[in-house]
Amino acid sequence: MNPSFETFSQGEEIITGQVVDTNAAWLSQQAVALGFTVTRHTAVGDKLEDLIQLLLDIANRADCCICTGGLGPTSDDLTAEAVAKAFNLPLVFDEIAFSQIEQFFGNRNRAMPECNRKQAMLPQGAIRLDNRTGTAPGFALHLGRCWFAFVPGVPPEMRTMFLDHIQAMLSNQFTLQPSRLITIKTIGMGESDLQERINRIAIPAKVQLGFRAEIGEVQTKLLFPNDYPQAQQESLTNEIAHAIGDAVYAIEGLKRQSHDQQTVDLISVIDQLMITQGHTLAVVETISQGLLAAKLVGVSWLLSANYEQSLEKLTQRLEISNNLDDMMAAAKAIADAVQKSTDADMVLIQLASAGYYSNPHNIDSITVTNALFVKGKAYYTVRILTGDIKRKQQQAALSALDLLRRYLQGKDLI
Amino acid sequence: MNPSFETFSQGEEIITGQVVDTNAAWLSQQAVALGFTVTRHTAVGDKLEDLIQLLLDIANRADCCICTGGLGPTSDDLTAEAVAKAFNLPLVFDEIAFSQIEQFFGNRNRAMPECNRKQAMLPQGAIRLDNRTGTAPGFALHLGRCWFAFVPGVPPEMRTMFLDHIQAMLSNQFTLQPSRLITIKTIGMGESDLQERINRIAIPAKVQLGFRAEIGEVQTKLLFPNDYPQAQQESLTNEIAHAIGDAVYAIEGLKRQSHDQQTVDLISVIDQLMITQGHTLAVVETISQGLLAAKLVGVSWLLSANYEQSLEKLTQRLEISNNLDDMMAAAKAIADAVQKSTDADMVLIQLASAGYYSNPHNIDSITVTNALFVKGKAYYTVRILTGDIKRKQQQAALSALDLLRRYLQGKDLI
Repeated sequence: MNPSFETFSQGEEIITGQVVDTNAAWLSQQAVALGFTVTRHTAVGDKLEDLIQLLLDIANRADCCICTGGLGPTSDDLTAEAVAKAFNLPLVFDEIAFSQIEQFFGNRNRAMPECNRKQAMLPQGAIRLDNRTGTAPGFALHLGRCWFAFVPGVPPEMRTMFLDHIQAMLSNQFTLQPSRLITIKTIGMGESDLQERINRIAIPAKVQLGFRAEIGEVQTKLLFPNDYPQAQQESLTNEIAHAIGDAVYAIEGLKRQSHDQQTVDLISVIDQLMITQGHTLAVVETISQGLLAAKLVGVSWLLSANYEQSLEKLTQRLEISNNLDDMMAAAKAIADAVQKSTDADMVLIQLASAGYYSNPHNIDSITVTNALFVKGKAYYTVRILTGDIKRKQQQAALSALDLLRRYLQGKDLI
Repeated sequence: MNPSFETFSQGEEIITGQVVDTNAAWLSQQAVALGFTVTRHTAVGDKLEDLIQLLLDIANRADCCICTGGLGPTSDDLTAEAVAKAFNLPLVFDEIAFSQIEQFFGNRNRAMPECNRKQAMLPQGAIRLDNRTGTAPGFALHLGRCWFAFVPGVPPEMRTMFLDHIQAMLSNQFTLQPSRLITIKTIGMGESDLQERINRIAIPAKVQLGFRAEIGEVQTKLLFPNDYPQAQQESLTNEIAHAIGDAVYAIEGLKRQSHDQQTVDLISVIDQLMITQGHTLAVVETISQGLLAAKLVGVSWLLSANYEQSLEKLTQRLEISNNLDDMMAAAKAIADAVQKSTDADMVLIQLASAGYYSNPHNIDSITVTNALFVKGKAYYTVRILTGDIKRKQQQAALSALDLLRRYLQGKDLI
């Protein structure tokens, strides 16, 4: 039997619904992958007696619990105090934690406010969990039946600390039989289309099939039990990926790896291919309005990005004859000029259907044409965008990235 | 004292983290607005004994609970059975519920599968809650101390049923005194700095003070009880906002409004001021790499946005003499050229400290100078950015927006 796992989220902003608790879901996914059975999520506010009672309950019923939130410097951050009261442990000043907090402020040329001193007080016997992205250190300790870890509620800090420290500690503390999760990542295909293609394949009852949809991207998840033969895992995964086709941009977890599986996203796939193939890129955005460039932050090969409210303005600025009747001809002319001024060997131009420029807030569907110019040749895709302006912006940025990905992977441009 | 309120979410997809539970947050917001105090969220999976125990616990400790999920037709939908077992109530066939389910399938020209018959079995004494968008009817009943409502977990069905039925039932069942939430929104000031400034002010114990931090933005929340005089709500809010100073960009909820209060974010504040003051803008981004333009999607006054990997390239392209030793002189020259080519009356240039260009992935802190040129005059702020490259990108975009906001609101540029 798998050890049981709970999450415990603390904070008025969670309990009053101002913030959706995404930590519980993220931690549960990690716990399932490691081989725990998740039994419960609980969230409570900033009331000390509620925190104490819940800690006592969980210490009595669960094998492992990760608690998020309540480690900040302010008066409504009560987690350490609740642990101390619930289990009769004094709070002890941790010098290393304190010097880390001081350093956090020092690095920003600021004096540490007095209230942050409180964050260095940890329950006696706890193991300090260093936080390299924020001020609040976490801590871990056994209480009753349960091994507890306490981390901040800010999602990026929480995730970093889980991956830095907690993941390895869990593997050491518990005897786990991890199931294996393989994720097939696709872009540009809807969930029901995907499901229709997969329906043709017989999937054994022991394998859990799930879907997770985001804007533009759908992840197909296959959870294999620990004793499922590896060769059969791989052949089933490949069969499904083949049925889905060129929309698949990556498969995660197919190769059995070390514990911290690297997640592969669309940008990292493109980044690797651009570097391997030695390309540089300049982009001209319309509907995505900067979001395409923004998603590529940190890559070495994006030389230039441009957005102009009107394409006329852009052609004028680039001193191209104004030939917008023929959009692709205009795109080619823009690309040539951009290529010359930036020295990028690839230029990606995004063109919206004419109606977009006159009323970008219109919620009807519009057409985006992404055109990629490489060594004098043009490659393009046409996509329909729907929804409000922010959704269209996201879809436009992703459709441009997908064109780039399909070109680099040698996939069909459809 | 407000009646207490809990949410209870049922389902393996929630507990294993495949789905983020947004229902708990949505229901809690509704409950707070009505005058409940939300005390706890709990989620469990599809184990009958867990469901029964949790129902008994909640019946014993809460005044009101809304349960989502577990009302479907399949064998893992156990909510009605759990209620029956926990409180010794037989399940009774509800003819009206059954005819509604039959009609749901009839409207889609499909025969009702036999398993859906189960959805018409409700605990004895329960009030049926009609579901006009799905097959599963909900139900409501008093169990122990607590008034329970059970609804499907599919968010649109759940929301429709809450607004159709439950909202009015809660107002009838309970004596509610809605409290009033005022939110002071600030940008560019950390949570601990904010708290130090607020600490000087005596805040009555009846007023709940809370903070919510996102990257670059902190919200200070004041929750006033129903009987707190309005004039005193306003004077306390203004006193706090004054102590915080020019970092305040908006106050939400200060004017008593109709039920659905409009939220004000940084972009909407800037948008309104840009339109009222009749400005247009062109931006040149470095560290924010398109994110500044992307955040401004849909505004009418952003004419152009530009990102170049190297500032040398930009000056070269704009045919400006390469005078990067003096960053502000270079910025002025770039701004003049951009102003000429775009016709925007405002140009915002973002300059990173030199180290950034050689190694943008360096996680040390860097300095960003945002310079705004309006009618030949320069306005600028200098900010320290920290963290990984994505965090710096966010901070850089927000710091540029904050400069624009401070200029438009006539605040100090510090």
